[in-house]
Amino acid sequence: MKVNNTHYRTIWVEGEQTLVVKTINQQELPHRFEIMDIVDSQQMCRAISEMYLRGAGLIGAAAGYGMYLAAREAATGSDFEAELERLAGLLEATRPTACNLARAVCRQQAAIAAAATIEEKVAAALRTAGEIADEDAEFCRRIGEHGLPIIKRISEAKGGGVVNILTHCNAGWLAFVDYGSATAPIYAAHDAGIPVHVWVDETRPRNQGAALTAWELGRHGVPHHLIPDNAGGHLMQHRKVDMVITGADRVTVAGDAANKIGTYLKALAAKDNGVPFYVALPGTTFDWALSNGVREIPIEKRGSSEVRYMRGLLDGRLEEVLICPEDTPAVNYGFDVTPSRLITGLICERGVAEASRKGLAALYPEEVPVHG
Amino acid sequence: MKVNNTHYRTIWVEGEQTLVVKTINQQELPHRFEIMDIVDSQQMCRAISEMYLRGAGLIGAAAGYGMYLAAREAATGSDFEAELERLAGLLEATRPTACNLARAVCRQQAAIAAAATIEEKVAAALRTAGEIADEDAEFCRRIGEHGLPIIKRISEAKGGGVVNILTHCNAGWLAFVDYGSATAPIYAAHDAGIPVHVWVDETRPRNQGAALTAWELGRHGVPHHLIPDNAGGHLMQHRKVDMVITGADRVTVAGDAANKIGTYLKALAAKDNGVPFYVALPGTTFDWALSNGVREIPIEKRGSSEVRYMRGLLDGRLEEVLICPEDTPAVNYGFDVTPSRLITGLICERGVAEASRKGLAALYPEEVPVHG
Repeated sequence: MKVNNTHYRTIWVEGEQTLVVKTINQQELPHRFEIMDIVDSQQMCRAISEMYLRGAGLIGAAAGYGMYLAAREAATGSDFEAELERLAGLLEATRPTACNLARAVCRQQAAIAAAATIEEKVAAALRTAGEIADEDAEFCRRIGEHGLPIIKRISEAKGGGVVNILTHCNAGWLAFVDYGSATAPIYAAHDAGIPVHVWVDETRPRNQGAALTAWELGRHGVPHHLIPDNAGGHLMQHRKVDMVITGADRVTVAGDAANKIGTYLKALAAKDNGVPFYVALPGTTFDWALSNGVREIPIEKRGSSEVRYMRGLLDGRLEEVLICPEDTPAVNYGFDVTPSRLITGLICERGVAEASRKGLAALYPEEVPVHG
Repeated sequence: MKVNNTHYRTIWVEGEQTLVVKTINQQELPHRFEIMDIVDSQQMCRAISEMYLRGAGLIGAAAGYGMYLAAREAATGSDFEAELERLAGLLEATRPTACNLARAVCRQQAAIAAAATIEEKVAAALRTAGEIADEDAEFCRRIGEHGLPIIKRISEAKGGGVVNILTHCNAGWLAFVDYGSATAPIYAAHDAGIPVHVWVDETRPRNQGAALTAWELGRHGVPHHLIPDNAGGHLMQHRKVDMVITGADRVTVAGDAANKIGTYLKALAAKDNGVPFYVALPGTTFDWALSNGVREIPIEKRGSSEVRYMRGLLDGRLEEVLICPEDTPAVNYGFDVTPSRLITGLICERGVAEASRKGLAALYPEEVPVHG
């Protein structure tokens, strides 16, 4: 999408002899727009685990490029297979909840194994990384295409009025390679001239809404307001939200969706107030092996300092301020699971599905057995 | 309650000849425990309006002491009645929406008017201020007494296990004269040896949970963890919350409760997971004239800088950091309304009532007409 009228993706390669992976340093957003270089797989692991880059789609693409870097490094040693496997393991260990990561690593392993020579293996890894990134962007573009009519219908029902859309966390283009998942229908509607306004949940504790979603909507010119995560219920009670669209980190075959902590609370409020609640995701985010999301999806527990400290700009510098007593302990779960019964529909690259095994079987028949 | 093993109230008088009103400077919490002196009614106005002290119960007690200071000042002039009326007007204007404030000023005016001499009027004002503070503390103590058996039963049902209680915002002793409303049953249970653990919602945007509730629970020795406001739903889905207790800012005769923004979302999650959800409040918090809370209770809209900036400690100083892009607009609603259908019970100084007109008529028959 656009930053200061220039089109960017979130990850790409550049260079004449030795390629360098380039990505937007999301740690510096929203206060500084900085492109960072990633030159080896160790740096890629650090970029993923320390969240210089984040978001399911982008993590998948990053893992793809990480495997290219890993193959390039393994090619310089004596045992290509063993070294590649070791580096792949390190990449896979960076973020436990994101299945795009494991899938990209797995796809790369197959592509690399299928190539004959070491040189061909490295070339296959680069080609596959590009394919993973292109597919991610294309999937998101299609999510926008399928979500657009939903927004259009709401606007028409309001006599061409502004459609107020609430979103949680960042499932924007910064979380993918381009377009985003939750934001793809919003960008598509905005670019098609349908009036939209976005309520951006700040998304504590890491504030991806305040830092990333507000930034990317602002750069692209989409009207929006930042709100505390606590506000959505009140806004829905007072008819100030026409629909909710969030992304997802992992969705089961039954349609249960793991997403950033707090999503479930917004889904409950949407249900209680008759507000349509959509989850937008590329097919790669499904975990076809799981059914009951609340019981089966493992939830990442992160460091308590993300809760105890708040990061922001002070006198032009990024600083972290302590918001509680020195000795207060905190707990930090990264995600929660929204049961399918609270989800109006899943907006995917193939169309909009009911959040159920039946709905998903219609859209992804090759993945969902009729009698599951 | 206790701070470093010493018992404190939030407001009291001290001195040998000229009494000074003492209060905890809540602007400095949780990073510094500072007692501030209030020597005249003008300082009291400033302490209330600039929120050096806050919370419905404490504001009422502060207004009571403010009227004592006002009477003392009026006694030195030529026209006691006119000067007292002028100073009472200034006190009432500090937080125009807090009904405890207007009630305390009104009660003082009657007590002062009933005394014969100027000297007796000042003495009556001091005595009445003490009564207002004592009553507030006593109401909260009884809320604790009535809430304690609920916690005890849960612990017994868990075979003497730890009762995990989630709370939102600060309805602790810092918001009252002592004990608090939501915290009173928690302190009572803890002091009675029942094992309790509190999940403290940080309560964006002003972080009263992180700054005040975490501080007071920690000083009194009650086990607790700070959590983002987003986390409660996940904790409830995974049976890590046995009950929720919040305070309230205004409760209607039908049992609908206005409380800090985000309370409604926790109530929805509690309902969805079969977790009991209690609202604790002194009878003074009811607005007997209102019925439908969502429709009738006006919700304060506050400045957007509370959302855009976050306050905390950096290198020993209180600082505010910007958490979103410079140009991001934000919206800040102070409260939301939890409909009575989501509330298990109202814990009051007279007992525990069903959150309904019928339940409240049983507890406050003099306030609720049988055929309303």
